[in-house]
Amino acid sequence: MASAARRIASTELSASEARWISLKKLTYIDQEGKERVWEYAERKTRKSSVVDAVAIFAILRSKTNAFPPSTVIVEQYRPPIDRVVIELPAGLVDEHETPEDAAKRELTEETGYVGTKIIETSPIIVCDPGMTNANMKLITIEVLMEHELTTPDQHLDTGEHIVRRVVDLEYLESVLKEYDNKGYVVDARLFHLAAGYAMATRLK
Amino acid sequence: MASAARRIASTELSASEARWISLKKLTYIDQEGKERVWEYAERKTRKSSVVDAVAIFAILRSKTNAFPPSTVIVEQYRPPIDRVVIELPAGLVDEHETPEDAAKRELTEETGYVGTKIIETSPIIVCDPGMTNANMKLITIEVLMEHELTTPDQHLDTGEHIVRRVVDLEYLESVLKEYDNKGYVVDARLFHLAAGYAMATRLK
Repeated sequence: MASAARRIASTELSASEARWISLKKLTYIDQEGKERVWEYAERKTRKSSVVDAVAIFAILRSKTNAFPPSTVIVEQYRPPIDRVVIELPAGLVDEHETPEDAAKRELTEETGYVGTKIIETSPIIVCDPGMTNANMKLITIEVLMEHELTTPDQHLDTGEHIVRRVVDLEYLESVLKEYDNKGYVVDARLFHLAAGYAMATRLK
Repeated sequence: MASAARRIASTELSASEARWISLKKLTYIDQEGKERVWEYAERKTRKSSVVDAVAIFAILRSKTNAFPPSTVIVEQYRPPIDRVVIELPAGLVDEHETPEDAAKRELTEETGYVGTKIIETSPIIVCDPGMTNANMKLITIEVLMEHELTTPDQHLDTGEHIVRRVVDLEYLESVLKEYDNKGYVVDARLFHLAAGYAMATRLK
């Protein structure tokens, strides 16, 4: 029977043992010609793709306006945080896969929804540029439905536990704050998207 | 004379040498009771504060509507990316400082603008929860001006090179895409904020 995931131990990892991440020290010349050093963490998985990951901003709409423009978010246990984190659907880009194909694949795997149109692909954007070189693209995908909101089956891998939730865009920011109140943690990128959406609504 | 910053070397760093970041291996129990491991990177700076950093979403407004609602973004060389990255003003929270005080301080240091009101403080949000435990808060601050947009002096530390730019919120997403076209790199959180803002405008 499924129960809550939880951390049981955390230990220092030596560089030689690490399989997924490496620690790096870089030397750079600053704007005044002075040599300086900086520490950061790097993924070992980037390979031939220049993009580590994609996140999907799905716009769920009804041809008959049977429901308001909505998006789909996911709840997933994240070991580094040791909590269930609320995020946009997302995933790593496989080798020989375009970011758009990765986005369509991940959206369907994690949520069941099938994108009907790629609305927009962001530039390559960086996740925490003071600390890592990790990067990604944000792909906006329209999911157009004939009428009412349907709830298709997810296609999760064995061992993947992802709960999806459809949210009216107008209430996205307040839904995220409710999650925080209930002990979940919200991803910063998703929260920034919601804050931008809410501010545009407030300033109109 | 100031010139462009640039990386000159990057080497593997051993765990014992690292001062700012550590590599960790954690063990957790998944939802099916299976023991699994996960690698992640952790900042060594969190100390007593539970929040690593703040970013500032400044809303620049005119009492006489002499200019449209705008925000201020910063251009800054980031060694892990080896490019100038476009971000919201941001910084680490000092010990014994509230996130709101850190946000006001960083906004004034990096941009010169003085917040007139804290509009909103986000929950603690996580930056890249598959890879690190780094967290932050997004603080929305109003900067109300009597009339026209003024351009106050920055208060940068020695060795800090930060260029600020005021952007009409309506054009934020397109300004960020222009930066990308010119060889700059945009921070993912800022881009998500802009994408949310733009989508709300498009759906109205």
